[in-house]
Amino acid sequence: MASAQSIRSAIRDIPNFPQPGIVFRDITPVLADPGLFKDSITLLCDTAGGTAIDKIVGIDARGFIFAAAVADRLGAGFVPVRKKGKLPWNTRGLSYTLEYGEAEVEIHEDAVNPGEKVLLVDDLLATGGTASAAVQLLDGLGADLVAVSFLIELNGLSGRDKLGDHRIESIVQYE
Amino acid sequence: MASAQSIRSAIRDIPNFPQPGIVFRDITPVLADPGLFKDSITLLCDTAGGTAIDKIVGIDARGFIFAAAVADRLGAGFVPVRKKGKLPWNTRGLSYTLEYGEAEVEIHEDAVNPGEKVLLVDDLLATGGTASAAVQLLDGLGADLVAVSFLIELNGLSGRDKLGDHRIESIVQYE
Repeated sequence: MASAQSIRSAIRDIPNFPQPGIVFRDITPVLADPGLFKDSITLLCDTAGGTAIDKIVGIDARGFIFAAAVADRLGAGFVPVRKKGKLPWNTRGLSYTLEYGEAEVEIHEDAVNPGEKVLLVDDLLATGGTASAAVQLLDGLGADLVAVSFLIELNGLSGRDKLGDHRIESIVQYE
Repeated sequence: MASAQSIRSAIRDIPNFPQPGIVFRDITPVLADPGLFKDSITLLCDTAGGTAIDKIVGIDARGFIFAAAVADRLGAGFVPVRKKGKLPWNTRGLSYTLEYGEAEVEIHEDAVNPGEKVLLVDDLLATGGTASAAVQLLDGLGADLVAVSFLIELNGLSGRDKLGDHRIESIVQYE
């Protein structure tokens, strides 16, 4: 049976990355292990709660890893949310504030049809800036956002407070 | 049955992206269609030729989409090759020349063990610069590279000539 505890045990702590004082949670040992990778996809699929999902939305770049495998498993389409300038067709974009400066993410205008059931999947919920921008883009396209699901949630950064009334799920939590 | 022709028909041509004179092959309509996305993963899985694969290697960022779903299907681990500075642990890197300037990709030192059977999966074989760097990193780690597999190959750019003696597969080709 898929176990969040096994996944957590495989996550590698990297002190002072990407900058001094930050402990980076390195998921590559989870990805590299076939059983743990499968378990992480199973647990993320379970966050759909049995609802038939039309589109899985993944956020550039690590989010793609989980979201794409979830889409394949659930028989859903896959939609990328990307950093500004990467998507080639007509886009809607949203800027958001980072600790230092700004970033912008985009989605294709035709990526989701109004009323489609959508699951947003990303690797990490930290401050919630990127996820919040993605949620707002999906709300703007009229998506029926079933849940926003993360492999890891850093509780101390209160990212879920930025995601409105949507259901938020995470597999592994850190204080 | 999974059909390369159906996938090709869904790819959207975007003239003059990312720069004048380039026709960008937009795969997002393939990704968004559950059947075509599944078919693309099936056809990429088939390029393993029935060999049991230990690790699927995907290249940042669109390559992650296909490689992760292939890893989940084949019961293999997933290994990311990323742009410089993104991987948090001990890395090996390789610089390569672009049309304007240089780029560098990295892989974790412990990502692949010597002798492990590896399938490298990416969305697009164009000039082959990034794929060639990834292949050299995998060769350096002692990987047994079973094949290098792309959803799309742009034949006119002769990218496969840069990939040495490895077996190269692609699902959809453009002249």
